[in-house]
Amino acid sequence: MKKLLFVFFSFPFFALSQSADSAFIKTMADEILSNGKAFENLRVLTKQIGGRLAGSPQMVKAENWGAATMRQSGADTVYMQECMVPHWVRGGKDIAAIVSAGDKKQSRSLAVLALGNSSGSGTKGVTADVIAVSSFDELEKRKNEVKGKIVFYNYPFNPTYIRPGQSYGEAGVYRYNGASRAAKYGAVGVMIRSLTGGTNNYPHTGAMRYNDSFPKIPAVALGLEDAEYLWQTCSKNQNTIVSFTTNGHFLPDTTGHNVIAELRGTETPNEYITIGGHLDSWDVNEGAHDDGTGIVQTIEILRMFKALGYKPKKTIRFVLFANEENGLRGGQKYADMAKAKNETHVFALESDGGGFTPRGFSFETTNDKIEKMQPWVNLLLPYGAYELKTGGGGADVSPLNKTFNTPVAELLPDNQRYFDLHHAANDVFEAVNKRELLLGAVNMAGLVYLVDKYGL
Amino acid sequence: MKKLLFVFFSFPFFALSQSADSAFIKTMADEILSNGKAFENLRVLTKQIGGRLAGSPQMVKAENWGAATMRQSGADTVYMQECMVPHWVRGGKDIAAIVSAGDKKQSRSLAVLALGNSSGSGTKGVTADVIAVSSFDELEKRKNEVKGKIVFYNYPFNPTYIRPGQSYGEAGVYRYNGASRAAKYGAVGVMIRSLTGGTNNYPHTGAMRYNDSFPKIPAVALGLEDAEYLWQTCSKNQNTIVSFTTNGHFLPDTTGHNVIAELRGTETPNEYITIGGHLDSWDVNEGAHDDGTGIVQTIEILRMFKALGYKPKKTIRFVLFANEENGLRGGQKYADMAKAKNETHVFALESDGGGFTPRGFSFETTNDKIEKMQPWVNLLLPYGAYELKTGGGGADVSPLNKTFNTPVAELLPDNQRYFDLHHAANDVFEAVNKRELLLGAVNMAGLVYLVDKYGL
Repeated sequence: MKKLLFVFFSFPFFALSQSADSAFIKTMADEILSNGKAFENLRVLTKQIGGRLAGSPQMVKAENWGAATMRQSGADTVYMQECMVPHWVRGGKDIAAIVSAGDKKQSRSLAVLALGNSSGSGTKGVTADVIAVSSFDELEKRKNEVKGKIVFYNYPFNPTYIRPGQSYGEAGVYRYNGASRAAKYGAVGVMIRSLTGGTNNYPHTGAMRYNDSFPKIPAVALGLEDAEYLWQTCSKNQNTIVSFTTNGHFLPDTTGHNVIAELRGTETPNEYITIGGHLDSWDVNEGAHDDGTGIVQTIEILRMFKALGYKPKKTIRFVLFANEENGLRGGQKYADMAKAKNETHVFALESDGGGFTPRGFSFETTNDKIEKMQPWVNLLLPYGAYELKTGGGGADVSPLNKTFNTPVAELLPDNQRYFDLHHAANDVFEAVNKRELLLGAVNMAGLVYLVDKYGL
Repeated sequence: MKKLLFVFFSFPFFALSQSADSAFIKTMADEILSNGKAFENLRVLTKQIGGRLAGSPQMVKAENWGAATMRQSGADTVYMQECMVPHWVRGGKDIAAIVSAGDKKQSRSLAVLALGNSSGSGTKGVTADVIAVSSFDELEKRKNEVKGKIVFYNYPFNPTYIRPGQSYGEAGVYRYNGASRAAKYGAVGVMIRSLTGGTNNYPHTGAMRYNDSFPKIPAVALGLEDAEYLWQTCSKNQNTIVSFTTNGHFLPDTTGHNVIAELRGTETPNEYITIGGHLDSWDVNEGAHDDGTGIVQTIEILRMFKALGYKPKKTIRFVLFANEENGLRGGQKYADMAKAKNETHVFALESDGGGFTPRGFSFETTNDKIEKMQPWVNLLLPYGAYELKTGGGGADVSPLNKTFNTPVAELLPDNQRYFDLHHAANDVFEAVNKRELLLGAVNMAGLVYLVDKYGL
């Protein structure tokens, strides 16, 4: 009975407040969709600055641009939070070719990119027989054949997973750990099938890591069509010899920055909500969907709040994180500094899944908090987000969760196209649709407004 | 109490059948996502045949290709249903330029396309002062200024509508009726702002219609950037003179066909379910999203049903409709023939909103049928469709609804990108993503399977 009474009395209030919230979210959406600057900001970031790997001159340009753009957008405060970042460089053009198959000489070039953090082959390159395997299981079974060879992992994206992130997670271990697992058995180089289910031949780079117990052998990703070609060639020929040359190496760590803007809270300014994306990208593209779109969405929400004169209860931080791609140093630094200052972080949201139309948000938090948020779905649904569910937050905000148990979340866009261009040369401005980008910002703004107003 | 008992007893059955349905929909999804031919079929339709306006040689090629492809996909029957179609031709290149603004001569060319069904200007073109209006209301207020001039309607897409189809519906009246409403007051030509909220300058054609009471003046659509430029030019200058030349005209009606395949029903073969898209497209592009994707999704569902050995209860018709774009003769003919043969049509579904990831289905039917379908949302949600709602079915199946009151529906894709390329030169194969296309077919197949099994 008590529960029924509660429902009875609380319903009108809930309905009233939902109606006020609905109206304000519409106001925010109208401002973003009518006057949003995210698309033009993205054009500048991608076309005037371009790829901006940690440590590169473009990283510095992007930091300065980010700070200036957030100042222009009306932040109460903008500052740089220094953090040391790794400085890996590609060092030259990555090249590869099939030299011979069976008894026949070939000179078929292969589209490749060195994996990020990998060591170059040396100027003479690496030339060796290829052992093509479909999985680590097969590698283990054939470990006695590996010595002196190039291991080619041809693990494909599973097309039956509806969310391509699941395929990425599954295949990603070959990029990340494949080199050392092959080096353990004496391999001299590694090639992987690019982490994509796409329909083109762009190779996709991305971070890898060596296990220090084994030699640091060079490693490249193959474009999908060339991976298929090499797989067929190896299937048909006993001996297939490939040669590839890469030039990657690390320079000393260098100084990077998280670029941070704040809107000061009016009621509990010492409680922080963080919204962000990562400012770095790979070097081979414009870093448009990864993660230029998260950056300009973050700045857009700041611009919109100021344009509407919105006064948050809590302090809202807009953070352009450094070095997500090959180190996560920015996200870690942000959490470390928050801990050192004994800050209270109530929520953090990242957009790092591409600037596509939103479908919802994924959270790292307790089930009771997820339950509490469900009525908010009605408020976001008109703008495309229909689910608020568990499943993890963004990479850059995950250290906040680990440090403080802060609920963290990630925008879930409709990312069927994401892995066609992720870490590849075709992740460019032209691949971004203005309205899809802005709708992401609308839904993020809606969620942040609700958390600011009602807590979590 | 009765109701409670009903719920109690019916739940286990419902849960069991949902589980079986869920498993079969997963089987269909796996087959489509792993072995689907829709993307390769689309490549052939767009690249080897291309634009295929009613009456064109490409229309005939597309019909023959459609019939052959459905035969290869294993249809029980494939046949052509003859229907007369209009035969409008563009007749040459559409050109336009600003001749002078104020006292100053200019020769700035403008990106234009003649509207479909419009009459050409004659070889000398039309050259006249422009009267730029933002709406029909403004036209009516300024009707005394219209005589001898070119009316330029600059009615923009409303960016605050979340579904761009709403903007299209609102602005569409200027394309459809604008010429005759201006001719009524003595205008000699009409220009419209293209029906798009996009970020490029492609002009967008599309059907218009003359009111026979007034002169048939020539009519073009302007690319968005040029529409903005012309609007600004007219705002700043008392007299802006534009010249444009178009060559459109009708040839006599000619013979087209609906291309129809069937899977014969095993229980009630005289009850029909129709799935379709339209085979025709505009002449200025490859008709990829409009509506090549609907065509290849339709064929894909046929292929998948046969590959799985699925035996429908009802007879399923797969229809590639003729002449949606500038006449709807195919859809009308299909309903007329169904009526003449006294057929029973229980449901018809069209995909004609672009080959993007699905978000749901829109129906033209009664609210009780919409209610009945709601439990199906759980079954489609894993594949992206989260709403089954009223709002109208596809154009080609609408005559079935008018004739028999048949429930009709339309796939609702995530179409934020659709009006960037709709009826414009950039509606090409490269704009289609394979997985988004296939997921549309998955959700359509799921809905058709449920209707076949449970009725509506």
